Amino acid sequence: MSRKLAVVVPNLTDAHRQAIREAAERNQCELRILDAPREDLDYVLSSEIVFGHLPEIARTSPDLQWLATPYAGIDQFLVPDAFANPNALLTNSSGAYGVTIAEHIVMVLLAILRRDPEYRKIIAEKKWKRSLAIRSICGSRITLLGTGDIGREAARRLRAFAPASLTGINRSGKNPENLFDTVKTAAAEEWEDVLPETDVLIVSLPGTREAYHLLGRSHLKKLPDGAVIINVGRGSVIDQAALLAELQTGRLSAGLDVFEEEPLPKDDPAWTLPNLFITPHTAGNMTLGYTVDRIVEIFIENLDRYCANQPLLHLTDRQRGY
Amino acid sequence: MSRKLAVVVPNLTDAHRQAIREAAERNQCELRILDAPREDLDYVLSSEIVFGHLPEIARTSPDLQWLATPYAGIDQFLVPDAFANPNALLTNSSGAYGVTIAEHIVMVLLAILRRDPEYRKIIAEKKWKRSLAIRSICGSRITLLGTGDIGREAARRLRAFAPASLTGINRSGKNPENLFDTVKTAAAEEWEDVLPETDVLIVSLPGTREAYHLLGRSHLKKLPDGAVIINVGRGSVIDQAALLAELQTGRLSAGLDVFEEEPLPKDDPAWTLPNLFITPHTAGNMTLGYTVDRIVEIFIENLDRYCANQPLLHLTDRQRGY
Repeated sequence: MSRKLAVVVPNLTDAHRQAIREAAERNQCELRILDAPREDLDYVLSSEIVFGHLPEIARTSPDLQWLATPYAGIDQFLVPDAFANPNALLTNSSGAYGVTIAEHIVMVLLAILRRDPEYRKIIAEKKWKRSLAIRSICGSRITLLGTGDIGREAARRLRAFAPASLTGINRSGKNPENLFDTVKTAAAEEWEDVLPETDVLIVSLPGTREAYHLLGRSHLKKLPDGAVIINVGRGSVIDQAALLAELQTGRLSAGLDVFEEEPLPKDDPAWTLPNLFITPHTAGNMTLGYTVDRIVEIFIENLDRYCANQPLLHLTDRQRGY
Repeated sequence: MSRKLAVVVPNLTDAHRQAIREAAERNQCELRILDAPREDLDYVLSSEIVFGHLPEIARTSPDLQWLATPYAGIDQFLVPDAFANPNALLTNSSGAYGVTIAEHIVMVLLAILRRDPEYRKIIAEKKWKRSLAIRSICGSRITLLGTGDIGREAARRLRAFAPASLTGINRSGKNPENLFDTVKTAAAEEWEDVLPETDVLIVSLPGTREAYHLLGRSHLKKLPDGAVIINVGRGSVIDQAALLAELQTGRLSAGLDVFEEEPLPKDDPAWTLPNLFITPHTAGNMTLGYTVDRIVEIFIENLDRYCANQPLLHLTDRQRGY
């Protein structure tokens, strides 16, 4: 009996398709690779295995046994009745995005510290002004809220820039690979004391219920003047209205890749704040070949495991939310 | 007998001024700290020691014994009759700029690879387009033409991004601190073979006669499609017309902080090339506090040495040009 496998993942190269085909064949799976579910909705809805970020399929397919999303974030699958088959397994592709998001973090941080958005305007006007006071990662006190794949890959890179300190914040207080100088637990009384000593705050938490508005007005007030906040996790982790109010005073700067509502509404005041560096959720999307390579690798490894009745990697816990 | 010392350096803080005053006092120097030579031209022109980037003072002051420039580049002192006193010593502040220029290099490289100039436009138009294919430092073959302070500080940081390779090019073929995977000498037959294997070429050479147009049309042609060139050395090292012609085909991208003529003339076609990231010679200027700290440290250490008749650090060789 052959299992039905539907693959609906963007940006696949011929090599990726070939690798998936070979894996399907050796595991005796029937395979269709589609650009969109509507190309063959009956097939997708009757598939045992779906490789794609397809919450609407999960919600409506009773035959689905395993959904493998190419994304890291699973917030769209945390709502009630997210799966027509409540026993369906959900794996994500966490680990595939650390490299690209870490590069995003360093780029945005340097752009803010070196005032690149202002220099882009100077150059657009063909001016040769070069006197803006800039800052450096060297000597900065950096706090990483989240020490998963993203936090660790960011810490590895930031360390090479000789920051004054790298402090990690996580649930356990454990220091993964000793990449951080200090790790504090996310218990309020512990991590909030780090804020006044933080020049750069990097947020990479997933969009769990627990992390909702973890960073609110009172936390932002504790950051020192000039502090920089970078959010590459989920918009829900920061009280966006409180952050915008603080940015409007000019006291802080921020680089936001994620927002409470995406796309950011056209009339949102965020668009035009000079001290807010906006990216349209591009820190970790699938436009980098390296990332898609990892996503496909993870899926193929898991397909072999699934068909051999072995435990899946990157299995998510829909109660915890990641 | 007290020596006359004139200091004309921008962006000094009160702490810098105080440290210079103390150093002058313990070395029995008469001191004036000026914003510009014209504030007290007689004093500057009769000073034995001048701390400032002042080629016109060097050219006209017969009493000058030692000029300490806060810059790293000394090309303006390499012309004939640069010094009215041909025996005057010239020290530079190389070593003060590595950190800020290395941060510039990483920022510009990531901005180009991740197509940030295009994303700045998308955001300026309040659009949420996020589909541009991007590239990564991870897996890139990086060649650093120049392995001095700048090349080394850049290599330290780039290594953390997991490039496929870091190749240094210098005179000696020696590998400083083993920061590079390979080091080739700048002999034509040796280094030109590296070009077809180079995804990212970082140029940090000083503006010497020897390095003039070291990178010409034939070299640019050897770079593979999509290669990125970053120049933070001197504009004279690259045949700018040949580079612009190559950029106009869209085959390469570049980040240029230096040009053959600066400021870049208003009518230069470089201003509007979409695949050229221009900065107005800001990679290593004195707008970063850390840099000024190092410059003042170097000067004070050297003032103590000069007044104790000890050999100066950072003494330049005006024949070699650095």
